[in-house]
Amino acid sequence: MKIIVDAMGGDFSPNPQVEGSVKAAEELGIEIVLVGDSELIQKKLDEIGYKGTDITVRSASEVITNDDEPARAIRRKKDSSIVVAANMLKNGEGDGLVSTGATGGVLAAGLLIVGRIDGVLRPALAPVLPTDKGPAVLLDSGANADCKAANLAQFGIMGSVYANNVLDKQNARVAIVNIGAEEHKGNEMTREAYTLLKKAPINFTGNIEGREIMDGAADVIVCDGFVGNVILKLTEGLASTLLRNIKGMFMKNILTKLSALAMKGSFKEFKKKMDYTEYGGALLLGLKHPVVKGHGSSNAKAVYSAIKQAVKFVSSGVVDKIKEDLKKMEENNDGIEG
Amino acid sequence: MKIIVDAMGGDFSPNPQVEGSVKAAEELGIEIVLVGDSELIQKKLDEIGYKGTDITVRSASEVITNDDEPARAIRRKKDSSIVVAANMLKNGEGDGLVSTGATGGVLAAGLLIVGRIDGVLRPALAPVLPTDKGPAVLLDSGANADCKAANLAQFGIMGSVYANNVLDKQNARVAIVNIGAEEHKGNEMTREAYTLLKKAPINFTGNIEGREIMDGAADVIVCDGFVGNVILKLTEGLASTLLRNIKGMFMKNILTKLSALAMKGSFKEFKKKMDYTEYGGALLLGLKHPVVKGHGSSNAKAVYSAIKQAVKFVSSGVVDKIKEDLKKMEENNDGIEG
Repeated sequence: MKIIVDAMGGDFSPNPQVEGSVKAAEELGIEIVLVGDSELIQKKLDEIGYKGTDITVRSASEVITNDDEPARAIRRKKDSSIVVAANMLKNGEGDGLVSTGATGGVLAAGLLIVGRIDGVLRPALAPVLPTDKGPAVLLDSGANADCKAANLAQFGIMGSVYANNVLDKQNARVAIVNIGAEEHKGNEMTREAYTLLKKAPINFTGNIEGREIMDGAADVIVCDGFVGNVILKLTEGLASTLLRNIKGMFMKNILTKLSALAMKGSFKEFKKKMDYTEYGGALLLGLKHPVVKGHGSSNAKAVYSAIKQAVKFVSSGVVDKIKEDLKKMEENNDGIEG
Repeated sequence: MKIIVDAMGGDFSPNPQVEGSVKAAEELGIEIVLVGDSELIQKKLDEIGYKGTDITVRSASEVITNDDEPARAIRRKKDSSIVVAANMLKNGEGDGLVSTGATGGVLAAGLLIVGRIDGVLRPALAPVLPTDKGPAVLLDSGANADCKAANLAQFGIMGSVYANNVLDKQNARVAIVNIGAEEHKGNEMTREAYTLLKKAPINFTGNIEGREIMDGAADVIVCDGFVGNVILKLTEGLASTLLRNIKGMFMKNILTKLSALAMKGSFKEFKKKMDYTEYGGALLLGLKHPVVKGHGSSNAKAVYSAIKQAVKFVSSGVVDKIKEDLKKMEENNDGIEG
């Protein structure tokens, strides 16, 4: 298997991208193509002392940043690392792509270059949310600010396949984010999506309220990209606010500082449970080939996890299974109109 | 001043409602009418040993619950405590209303009996969110699952008046919840609302992302009722999940249990800062007279806080100020169409 790694566009590129790739090549027994500034990449490879043959470098002279208008940048910056990487993926020069570059650029490259699976109305950005009962997938988390019911229904199906095959869930519980548990609650979109998902070939468990998300009441959390983005960022923000407050409490006096020592192990364990770098990145679900978007601030471990995630995605045949399940659903509904 | 308290419909009604009212009558020097099962209310008053004349009781034989369809229940259950209370408010038999009953019933009674301020398109449910920089108001948090830009603009104005006059903010910072900071980010509704709020007679600070909400980056957090409800409940859920995890860590062994003792004071302080009972309830903003919706599980302290909030709302003339500011905004925009 060969994974294409966009080495540019992250906060510390290309260093963690190179380091994570070396670890992945060695531990997972895969080939990797690093795409980007070949001089910088080679320098880091030499620094690490990498002597293997599983990692190759493909030169790309440009980078798409958060300041670029994504769709336009994809057309203009033909030699940007993400455009080169996406074209390689499309042309079969690799089985999956990992990028820690600007989200807009990765989304646009996925949509415009890699392309959607036939029948997928809108691909979704699907990060993993650490909950009290293990990882859950949240989709869409920002690729589509405006959605229709049929989009949400497809998110449910794609998320279910992903959770069962990559997150090792058994019969993943799929729920729609809503403002009440009952079927008639919410807005027109959620009510329609409810009706569609009831007929889908998945374990649909109904609506989930904001209160239950972090308890782990669902394995696949379905919502439009606006709501998903708010959930993702609010969760990050609230967790860091609370942890900062707790840290402050521990620094108060000598007794609390001693307590901090006693609690260190537990906190480390908890932090690990809540650590995004454990889970890799966000899948762009619904594309013809796997694209994983890692956090811009990814360290080597996070890059490694994202590569591992891409490998698991490829080897479990998620793309084909999504195709199958969408087809089943279409048959159930005599075709979903988007 | 006279506050009408719906004594029924809360989880422990009418006991905390009666207790909170007695405390409020004594400490705030106001009159209170308790509405509901007069026998139960009188029993509790006797138990407390209340001998004053500031509290009177108005009998109402029915209760609207979460199982009732709100608009229908308002018409059918004419002798329910919330309907009787809302009619009293409308008829000038009190200056404000506090209810801890079913949210749907309180919203419907507010809208259909008390009525909107002229020019208000949609009243909003506006709870106070405890943030790292003190209380902020979140609106709408569930009264309107589907909104238009003009609704959001009015929420911004009403929230600003409320924050400046009841939460003692100076020139409250008003922001729209969005999935990016830039003006062009988000969906059609948020972009239009941004344009409208720029021209409003308030301190509009632009978009706010989920990550910044708990940091206290805004005093007035504007969004549609779907997003607001998710924010409110996710915040509650995440805080309780984190605190439960932390509690678990402290129970691990003798050292961590000793640590818990050392940290007790700080945690108590923090819990107080994050405690909804400190702030009372959610204002139903945009009605002709103040209606405060308290949590169903309110204890006496929370009921007292909600009454105090209603008193402050009345005495600071928020309704008139909302009227003025909406008029100014209409003039700026040559009329907002909803």
